[in-house]
Amino acid sequence: MEVGLLFSGGKDSSLTALLLDEFFDVTLVSAHFEVTGAWKHARKTATALGYDFEEVLLDREIARTAVEQMVEDGFPRNGIQQVHRHTLETVAAMEFDAIADGTRRDDRVPSVSRAQAQSLEDRHGIDYLAPLTGIGRNAVDKMVEKTLEIESGPSEEIPKGDYEVDLRALMAELYDDETVSQVFPAHTQTRVVARR
Amino acid sequence: MEVGLLFSGGKDSSLTALLLDEFFDVTLVSAHFEVTGAWKHARKTATALGYDFEEVLLDREIARTAVEQMVEDGFPRNGIQQVHRHTLETVAAMEFDAIADGTRRDDRVPSVSRAQAQSLEDRHGIDYLAPLTGIGRNAVDKMVEKTLEIESGPSEEIPKGDYEVDLRALMAELYDDETVSQVFPAHTQTRVVARR
Repeated sequence: MEVGLLFSGGKDSSLTALLLDEFFDVTLVSAHFEVTGAWKHARKTATALGYDFEEVLLDREIARTAVEQMVEDGFPRNGIQQVHRHTLETVAAMEFDAIADGTRRDDRVPSVSRAQAQSLEDRHGIDYLAPLTGIGRNAVDKMVEKTLEIESGPSEEIPKGDYEVDLRALMAELYDDETVSQVFPAHTQTRVVARR
Repeated sequence: MEVGLLFSGGKDSSLTALLLDEFFDVTLVSAHFEVTGAWKHARKTATALGYDFEEVLLDREIARTAVEQMVEDGFPRNGIQQVHRHTLETVAAMEFDAIADGTRRDDRVPSVSRAQAQSLEDRHGIDYLAPLTGIGRNAVDKMVEKTLEIESGPSEEIPKGDYEVDLRALMAELYDDETVSQVFPAHTQTRVVARR
């Protein structure tokens, strides 16, 4: 069974790949808006971990709507949620038998309810796998520590490969840098470098 | 990190062991009421899969209360839920750093909400892991097919190792066989025999 796993190069999606690869053929999929090329960092991590990789271009209009929502809200949560749903729909329509993501039990966003998961599965004739939704932050950290080598630092210095990078760049383009740092406060970011 | 995984010898708890054993030291734990000795079937499966095994005796009073609840309801759901919660509390109080179970996304019972999971973790200073809560029935079946050898048949013929066997026997003792077959309608049961 071929699984397309939404991949950012971060801890959660990398760990999800390790969990699933005993059972499925895993391809890591990085979704982006063709703004910054940040998806290439995800490809680098995918190669280091030894997985197949695909990039997929999302609808630029979704990015614009999400950015407007985030600026209106003053925080990124609802915009990220919109983009995540659109990404799941996009990857579900690709050639995979199943799709997966690294959502954790404690994540506020992205979140996919049981009803949304079943709707996604029924409409696309695929399975949706999110094994970390049954595992909390502390245990996820232990699992990462045991299996993955990571680097961490301020969010603007660590080259992540997810669509958030594109959304921030688009926000800077449509508004300004000041707006970006208000909506996305600086935080410590991590990136997976290799398997342990 | 030492994980105590609630184990029945069935597909879901066996698959959960395979998912977690790359990251943790897994011990399979079979909980029972010292009624039928059915837990020995779980031990047999645990040995076939190559895991450490422990049995733990539950409070007999919990079994009696659960049986009364099930007979009053006419179905086992609420009684099973009570016993599962008691089992989680019991295993959480043992020497493990984390506990786990094989609850699936589509299970009506047992179910453990996010709030209950966090309460269990906070009160006992452990982690609670339920990786199959993020995976639906079809995908679980595919994962089992790829990795486990199973036998299936009518529920009364397949020797399962979970507390349900003890609960049925206790119900027959306190009430009669007729009551048992009304509360637990016959269904196809499966048991894990070996790894593929």
